[in-house]
Amino acid sequence: MATTTPGSTSGSPTAPPAIDVPALAGFLDGRYAEVRELVRANLVAHASVLREAETMSRPEFRERVRRLVATMAGTGQTGMGFPKEYGGGGDLGASIAAFETLAFGDLSVLVKVGVQFGLFGGAILMLGTKRHHDAYLEDLVSGRLFGCFAMTESGHGSNVQALGTTATYDPATDELVLSTPDDMARKDYIGGAAQHADAAVVFAQLHVAGEDHGVHAIVVPIRENGALLKGIRAEDDGLKMGLNGVDNGRLWFDGVRVPRGNLLNRFADITDDGRYESPIESPDRRFFTMLGTLVQGRVSVGGAAVNAAKVALTLAVRYGARRRQFNATSSDEEELLLDYGLHQRRLLPLLAENYALHFAQEVVAAHLHEVFTPKPGEVEDEKARRELESRAAGTKALATWHATRTIQECREACGGAGYLAVNRFAALKADTDVFTTFEGDNNVLLQLVAKGLLTDYASDFEDLDQLGMVRFVAEQALETVIERTAAHQLLERIQDVLPGGDDEWDQEAGVRDREYHLAMFRFREEHRLSGLARRLKRGVDDGENMGEVFSRAQDHVIAVARAHVERLVLEAFVGKVRAMPEGDHRVALGLLCDLHALATIESDRAWFMEHGRLTATRSKAIQREVGDLCRHLRPLAVDLVDAYGVPPELLRSPDLLG
Amino acid sequence: MATTTPGSTSGSPTAPPAIDVPALAGFLDGRYAEVRELVRANLVAHASVLREAETMSRPEFRERVRRLVATMAGTGQTGMGFPKEYGGGGDLGASIAAFETLAFGDLSVLVKVGVQFGLFGGAILMLGTKRHHDAYLEDLVSGRLFGCFAMTESGHGSNVQALGTTATYDPATDELVLSTPDDMARKDYIGGAAQHADAAVVFAQLHVAGEDHGVHAIVVPIRENGALLKGIRAEDDGLKMGLNGVDNGRLWFDGVRVPRGNLLNRFADITDDGRYESPIESPDRRFFTMLGTLVQGRVSVGGAAVNAAKVALTLAVRYGARRRQFNATSSDEEELLLDYGLHQRRLLPLLAENYALHFAQEVVAAHLHEVFTPKPGEVEDEKARRELESRAAGTKALATWHATRTIQECREACGGAGYLAVNRFAALKADTDVFTTFEGDNNVLLQLVAKGLLTDYASDFEDLDQLGMVRFVAEQALETVIERTAAHQLLERIQDVLPGGDDEWDQEAGVRDREYHLAMFRFREEHRLSGLARRLKRGVDDGENMGEVFSRAQDHVIAVARAHVERLVLEAFVGKVRAMPEGDHRVALGLLCDLHALATIESDRAWFMEHGRLTATRSKAIQREVGDLCRHLRPLAVDLVDAYGVPPELLRSPDLLG
Repeated sequence: MATTTPGSTSGSPTAPPAIDVPALAGFLDGRYAEVRELVRANLVAHASVLREAETMSRPEFRERVRRLVATMAGTGQTGMGFPKEYGGGGDLGASIAAFETLAFGDLSVLVKVGVQFGLFGGAILMLGTKRHHDAYLEDLVSGRLFGCFAMTESGHGSNVQALGTTATYDPATDELVLSTPDDMARKDYIGGAAQHADAAVVFAQLHVAGEDHGVHAIVVPIRENGALLKGIRAEDDGLKMGLNGVDNGRLWFDGVRVPRGNLLNRFADITDDGRYESPIESPDRRFFTMLGTLVQGRVSVGGAAVNAAKVALTLAVRYGARRRQFNATSSDEEELLLDYGLHQRRLLPLLAENYALHFAQEVVAAHLHEVFTPKPGEVEDEKARRELESRAAGTKALATWHATRTIQECREACGGAGYLAVNRFAALKADTDVFTTFEGDNNVLLQLVAKGLLTDYASDFEDLDQLGMVRFVAEQALETVIERTAAHQLLERIQDVLPGGDDEWDQEAGVRDREYHLAMFRFREEHRLSGLARRLKRGVDDGENMGEVFSRAQDHVIAVARAHVERLVLEAFVGKVRAMPEGDHRVALGLLCDLHALATIESDRAWFMEHGRLTATRSKAIQREVGDLCRHLRPLAVDLVDAYGVPPELLRSPDLLG
Repeated sequence: MATTTPGSTSGSPTAPPAIDVPALAGFLDGRYAEVRELVRANLVAHASVLREAETMSRPEFRERVRRLVATMAGTGQTGMGFPKEYGGGGDLGASIAAFETLAFGDLSVLVKVGVQFGLFGGAILMLGTKRHHDAYLEDLVSGRLFGCFAMTESGHGSNVQALGTTATYDPATDELVLSTPDDMARKDYIGGAAQHADAAVVFAQLHVAGEDHGVHAIVVPIRENGALLKGIRAEDDGLKMGLNGVDNGRLWFDGVRVPRGNLLNRFADITDDGRYESPIESPDRRFFTMLGTLVQGRVSVGGAAVNAAKVALTLAVRYGARRRQFNATSSDEEELLLDYGLHQRRLLPLLAENYALHFAQEVVAAHLHEVFTPKPGEVEDEKARRELESRAAGTKALATWHATRTIQECREACGGAGYLAVNRFAALKADTDVFTTFEGDNNVLLQLVAKGLLTDYASDFEDLDQLGMVRFVAEQALETVIERTAAHQLLERIQDVLPGGDDEWDQEAGVRDREYHLAMFRFREEHRLSGLARRLKRGVDDGENMGEVFSRAQDHVIAVARAHVERLVLEAFVGKVRAMPEGDHRVALGLLCDLHALATIESDRAWFMEHGRLTATRSKAIQREVGDLCRHLRPLAVDLVDAYGVPPELLRSPDLLG
C-alpha cells in the first residue's frame, strides 16, 4: 500500500508518482503530528463509542459521552489551549490540531469537547480576567466542572446583538440580576444546558443605572449536584438530527442573582461604586471585540469539517477501488467503480478540494495561534485580527459546505451499503449537518467576509451594526474599493501570465500553469468586488434604500466573499506545493492542486466567459483537462486517502472495505 | 391565507396575482383528488407515528409500522393498483397517487407500503400468472401476507443480470432448488427480510437441464409463524441512516426447494416435461422485459420524492415568511428572512423546480396508467413502453436529487431550529437519502436514458447487456443519431423563435418568452446528443476499446440524459400552464414556470455560451431576470406552498410555524 506502482520513477511521463503513505501522512499532520497521534490513540482506545452511539439510549449515550470527554481531559488532549498554570498545555495551535483530529471519531464527543473547552472555557479565558481564571479554569480543564455557552436564543441566532436576555445591576446588593423577558429570549440549542452543565456563560444585555450597554458575558451557576438552582428553568431540546450525545437545551432566567464579579470583565466592568466602564468607547466596537476573541470556535469547526469529510472520502475511494459493477471494458471481469470516468469525476475533485482546504485550514490555524500568542513587547495588530476573523469565517463556511457535499456524494457513491449505519455515513451526515449553520450561519459569515473586503478591514467596521455597516459602505467605502480595483490593472496582470497575452488567450498551453490559475482567481475576486461596489454605488446615487440595494445584490455579496476565500484556499495549496522538496510527493500534490484549481474554474466558467476571461474553446479545454487530471490521479487515489491517517478502527465499514 | 393581496387584480403590472389556495390545491391534486384526500385523512389519523419514530425502540417501531400498513390496507388505500377480483381498486393511476401522498407522512410507512404492494405485490401481479394471483393477491392486498422483494445482492445492485443466486430445476422432484453460492450472492438490503416477510419473490439465475437461462423470479415461502423455514438464513441489516421502521435484512438459501409452479411464469416457464420455454427468444430481451414491468416502482419513488420535498419547502417558506433577523432596511424592525434577496434565491427556484417536477410526475404517472391499462383489442406498443421506462428512470433520478438538495437547503434556511427532530427535517433528510440510489442508482438510470436516446428506443436495445449495448451503439446507432441531429436544423429552429434571428440575439426582449425557453432546452438536448454520438464515433473510428471510450465520455452521457429529462419536465410544466384557463392562477404558475426555465438555463449557462447560444450580455440578463422573478414570486410563496396541502398535523414544527 505504501507505493502505488513500485517501479515508477518520478518525471516519467507515463508512470504515476510513487507515494510513501506514512511519509505523506506525516507531512499532512505537520507541526502537531505528536498531538494528532495522541488523539488518534485516544480515539482508537475508545472506538466502541461509535457503536454505542447506535445501541445506547439517548440518556445513556449522553452520559457515556460526558465521561469520555472527562477521560480525554485526563490525557491532556482537550486542554492544550489553556495556560499551563491551570493544567493546560499553553499552546493554542496544538489545541486546534487536537480538536480537528477528534473529528475522525464520534462527533458528539467532538462537539461536547468544543462546548466545554472551546466555548465555555474559551469565553472564560478570553473574556474573563484573573479572578475568573483562578476560579474556573483548573476545574474546567480537568473536566470536573462542566459548563455551557448560553448565547443563542430562540429569537436570535445570527443577530447576537439583538439578544433579549437582560442582566441588570442592582447596586443595593451589588449583584447582577438575570431575566428572560419572553420565550423568544430563552436560550436555545445550548449544548450542556439540558443536563450536564453546572455553570453557564450567559450573554445578556447589560443594564447599569438605567442604561443598556449592550451584550456582555456573565458566569452564572445553574446547577448543583445535578439540580437546577433557584430561578433557572431548563428544558431539553429533545431528539436532534444528529449529535445526540450532546444534551442541548433551553434556559430561562427568572431574576437570577449573581455577584457583580461574575461579569467577565476583560473589556468592560462595573466599578465598586456601581458605574459602567470600558476602555472601548463604542458599544458596537466593544461587542465585536468581545465576539472577535471567540474566533477559535470557527477555526475549530472548519478544521473538524475538513477531517470529517476525510473519513467519507477514505471510505468512498477505497470502496471504489475494490467494488466492481458491470462488464464495461471486458467480458471477463466487471469494472472497478473508480475506473469509470464518471466515478472519478464525482470523487476526485472533492478529494482535491479536501486537500486544498486541509492546507488552507493549516494557514488559518497558524494565523490564529500567532494572533493569540503575542510575543512580549509586541503591539497588537488590529487589522491582522480582523483579517483572521474574516479568514476564519470564510474558511469555516467553505469547509462545512464542502463536508456536507462530500459526505453526500461519497454516500451515494457507496450505494445501498452507504445507507447502513455500520458504514459510518449515517452518523457523518447527521452529525455534521449543523456545521453549516452553527458557529455562524455560513451565509451570514460570507457577508461578514464581503464587508471586510468592502471596507478593507477598516477599524470603523467594528463600530457598526448591520444597518450602520451598510450605510458606512455606501457613504465611505465604495469609492475606495472602486479605485483600488480599477479593472485595467487586473487585465494587465492576467495578460502577464499568459505567454502571448490576450492574442493567444485560446492556446491550450498554459492551462496547467499555476500562475495562470492564481491570476484567474485573483481577477475574479477583484472584478467581482469592484462590480459589487459599483452596483451598490448606483443604488446610493439613485437614492434608494441602501438595505434594499444590499438585499438585491446579496447573491453578489456572497459571490465576492466566496471568490475571495477560494483565492486564499488556492494560494495556501499552491504555497504548500511550492515549498515542498522536489520529488514524487510534490508531483502528486501538484496534480491535486491543478485539479482543484481547474475544477473550481470549471464550475465558475460561466462567470469567466461572461467577463471575457475565457473563450468557449478554452473553457472546453479546461473541462477536458479536469477529466485528464482525474484519470492521472486515479492510480494515486487510495494512497492519497490513506495518507489522511484515519485509523481503521474508526472507519468500521466491513462491507465497504472488505 | 386564501389570497395574498385581497385587492389585487390580475393583469395589473404591479399587483401580484391572487391565489385561491383551496382551488389551487385541488388543481394540483388533479384527477385523483379523492384518493389523495383519503390518504391525507389516514395520515392525519395516524400522525402520532411521526413522534413514535423518535420515541420507540427499533423493534417496537418496526412492529408499529407493520400494523399501520395493515390498517391502511384495510381502508383500500394501498391496494388500488390490484385487480378488483382480489380486493384491489383496479386503477393503477390511483395507486400511484395514493403512494405519492403517503410521502407527506412517515417514510418508513411509505417504504413498507412500497415493498409490500409495489415490489412484492407488483412482481406477483406483473411477472406471475393466474395461479399466482389466485394464490397470493387477496392475502397480500389485505395485509394478511407480508412479503419481500429479494433482488439485490451484496455483490450486485445495479447490475441485476449478474446476480449470483441460483434456482436449479430438479426434474426428479419437479422442484426448483435455490442456493446462495457465496456471501456476495446473499440477498441484501431487502425490506421485510429481517423480520416480517413470510414470502419472498427471489430473483435467481434459472438453471434448467444444465443450462443457465438468466435471471427469473420465483416465489419462495421463507417464514411460518415468524420462524424461518428450513434452508433459509436471515440476518438483520441493523441500524440504517433512516427508514428504521422497515426491517431490511439479508437472506441466504441453502438448497431451498419450492414446487416448479412457484416460478413466476408470465414470460418464461418450465414445461411439464421439464423443458424451459419462453415466447421471448433473446435472454437479454426477456430479462429486460421482465424488469420493465416493474417500472411502477421508479414512478412511485419519483412521486414520493417530489412530495417529501414539498414538506420541506412548506416549512422553510412559511418560516422565512415569519422569522425576522437583522435590521436590514429599517432601524425599527428586523427583516423577514424571505424579504432578503439571497433567501429568495435559495428557496424560490427550488419551489419552482418542485412545481415543474410535480407536473412532470403527473405526466409519467398518467403514461404508466395508460401503458399498463390496455384497452380491449389494443396492440401493445413496445416503443411507448420503452419510452415510459426511460422517462420513469429519468424523472426518478431528477426528482430524488431534487429532494435531497431541497431538503438540505430548506434545513439550512431554518438554521438551528431545522436541526431539531420535532421540526421534521431530521427524518426527511435521513429517510429520503437512499431514494437517489435505490430503485436504480440515479447515475445508472441516466445512462439508461442516454442509451434510449442514442438508439432511438430501438427494440434491439433490450437484447443487450451493458457491453453489448456499447457495441450496438458504436456499430449501428451513431450514424443515425448524427444524421438525426444535424446541427444546422437546430440552429434554424432556435432562430425562428427569436424575433430578429441571430442578429438580435442580445436583446433582452424575449427572455421571458416560453417558446424561447423550450427552444433552448431542445437545442441543448439535441446538440448534446449529436456531440456525444460524434465523440463516441471518433473513439470507434480510432479503434479504441469502446468501453473505455464510453467511460471517458460518461459525464457527457449523463449530461445528455439530464438535458433530455429536463426538457420533458419543462414541456410538462409549460403544457400544464398553457392548458389552464386565463386567470390569476395561470399568471402565478406562469411566473413559476418562467423561473424554473430560466433558473435551469442559468445553471447551465456556461454550456450555452460555449455552444454559441448565449452571449455574455444575455447570460447576465437571464441572471437578473431570475432575481426579478424571485422578487415577483415572493408575495405568492406562502400560498404556493399551502396549495401543496400538507396537513398541519404532519408538519409538526411548532417553533418554525409559530
